[in-house]
Amino acid sequence: MKQKRMMLKRDIKEKKELVNIEMDRFLPRKDEYPKQIHKAIRHSLFAGGKRIRPYLMIHTYQLFAKMTPKILPVAGALEMLHTYTLIHDDLPEIDNDDYRRGKRACHIIYGSNIALLAGDALLLYAIEAINSAEVNDKIKLQIIREFCEETGHLGLIAGQMVDIESEGKKISEKVVNYIHKNKTGRLINLAIRFGCLLSKASEVDREIMQRFGEKIGLAFQIMDDILDIEGDQNTLGKSTGKDEREKKATYPALAGIEKSREKAEKLIEGACQLLDKYGEKAQYLELLARFILTRKF
Amino acid sequence: MKQKRMMLKRDIKEKKELVNIEMDRFLPRKDEYPKQIHKAIRHSLFAGGKRIRPYLMIHTYQLFAKMTPKILPVAGALEMLHTYTLIHDDLPEIDNDDYRRGKRACHIIYGSNIALLAGDALLLYAIEAINSAEVNDKIKLQIIREFCEETGHLGLIAGQMVDIESEGKKISEKVVNYIHKNKTGRLINLAIRFGCLLSKASEVDREIMQRFGEKIGLAFQIMDDILDIEGDQNTLGKSTGKDEREKKATYPALAGIEKSREKAEKLIEGACQLLDKYGEKAQYLELLARFILTRKF
Repeated sequence: MKQKRMMLKRDIKEKKELVNIEMDRFLPRKDEYPKQIHKAIRHSLFAGGKRIRPYLMIHTYQLFAKMTPKILPVAGALEMLHTYTLIHDDLPEIDNDDYRRGKRACHIIYGSNIALLAGDALLLYAIEAINSAEVNDKIKLQIIREFCEETGHLGLIAGQMVDIESEGKKISEKVVNYIHKNKTGRLINLAIRFGCLLSKASEVDREIMQRFGEKIGLAFQIMDDILDIEGDQNTLGKSTGKDEREKKATYPALAGIEKSREKAEKLIEGACQLLDKYGEKAQYLELLARFILTRKF
Repeated sequence: MKQKRMMLKRDIKEKKELVNIEMDRFLPRKDEYPKQIHKAIRHSLFAGGKRIRPYLMIHTYQLFAKMTPKILPVAGALEMLHTYTLIHDDLPEIDNDDYRRGKRACHIIYGSNIALLAGDALLLYAIEAINSAEVNDKIKLQIIREFCEETGHLGLIAGQMVDIESEGKKISEKVVNYIHKNKTGRLINLAIRFGCLLSKASEVDREIMQRFGEKIGLAFQIMDDILDIEGDQNTLGKSTGKDEREKKATYPALAGIEKSREKAEKLIEGACQLLDKYGEKAQYLELLARFILTRKF
């Protein structure tokens, strides 16, 4: 087991390098005019992060096609998109978080005005990156379409919205599900969808992988909420105990930690069963899914 | 002259209706879940506004091709894009403006958190609208590419950034030019580019129209700055006197009102000469250009 975890760690690091090099090549240098915006963008993008969404996309792609660097701009776009959501989330208007990825949040260093613009810029940059990929036009437009739908006013933003409305209120499991599905699930789903679209996976495979994504997405959010209670701020790289203080809608708050952990375990078990069909090829996806249950950061 | 102004007014109203109907059809109803975000989006989008950018696009298109409703989603995208910039600009972080288009700004009614999300959502929605248009894939991707470039970290956002950095500082004409070119010019340029791309205008015509756009864009910004000093808040629908109070970088502050007005007049004269080639077809673009010098709102 320990050996497998090392394997996963090595592979995550390897793919992370690929994605980082791609983004570094693509983004303006931090001393490009106007400097502050480019510094802010690079600060948030390269403050750390495991590049899990690009990782998911790359391994989903590899289930159905041979790896090629042509897909890396799209993988980078997922990370830029994710970073845009983190920057805007951390702003005083929304979650008012001072730490992210173990470093001071963008708005703490550069001010809220520049952080706001840096988020906007990263969102646009993500779409530019997709557009720049050497990929068939039809697929590219489909990727951009799903990008906008999943992250827009009926996707990720809807999740944010309901999360904001629910603070301090007693809410049902249905609403907690809605928030998780949209806030966390959408991006994970998107990563898997992009992998399937780029590799031209069959309708059946897309369906299976979508269900895989839903399961690990929900498990990831449950474990994230548990880490907010039990985790260590230094290891985690972001503030903890906030959900409780702000009476946020979470699973542990609703069902208790033990029941929540059981639910997460069951979800991951189901997710891994879905991968059986792909044999050896899916080993990293399976390791990643299992890692969700044991991660400390 | 008065008759011509009436003609222009009627035509602006007519095109505005077309664009409004298109956007209304495209956007979720304001009672769609989650309600607050959809209310906020609609509030800002339909608070007024002359739809000048869609108007410019439509008339540029008509110079080179026969009008078709197929281009309306792209026209609507320009207005959604413009509205996203207004919502984020008005936030306390940036310009801290309470009024917009004669109504209370988005964040005043819905709070800064929802206004932030409404801006993000509109940006994504604009790209969705472009994607939905029944237009050739190559042209669509080119439009999305230019959309991201012109509004991103080296375009509109760069203009915002330098504007923020310049507040309260003594700055050169070069910097004022940079801010204007990027903050106002980019969107006007984009409207004209979209009209050219959609109508498959020749390289020569694109060049001419781009120069037309640069001239009216700069004139528009100069007159906007003059209106901030001389204009009436009620007629204008937004706060006045802010530039002076906040020591903003403007032409009138740099060169005085009279010299600024002369510069704007010269720019519009040059812009109209560029249209000579297109004869009667360009009459509304010419009227619009001349209207920039006399507008009170």
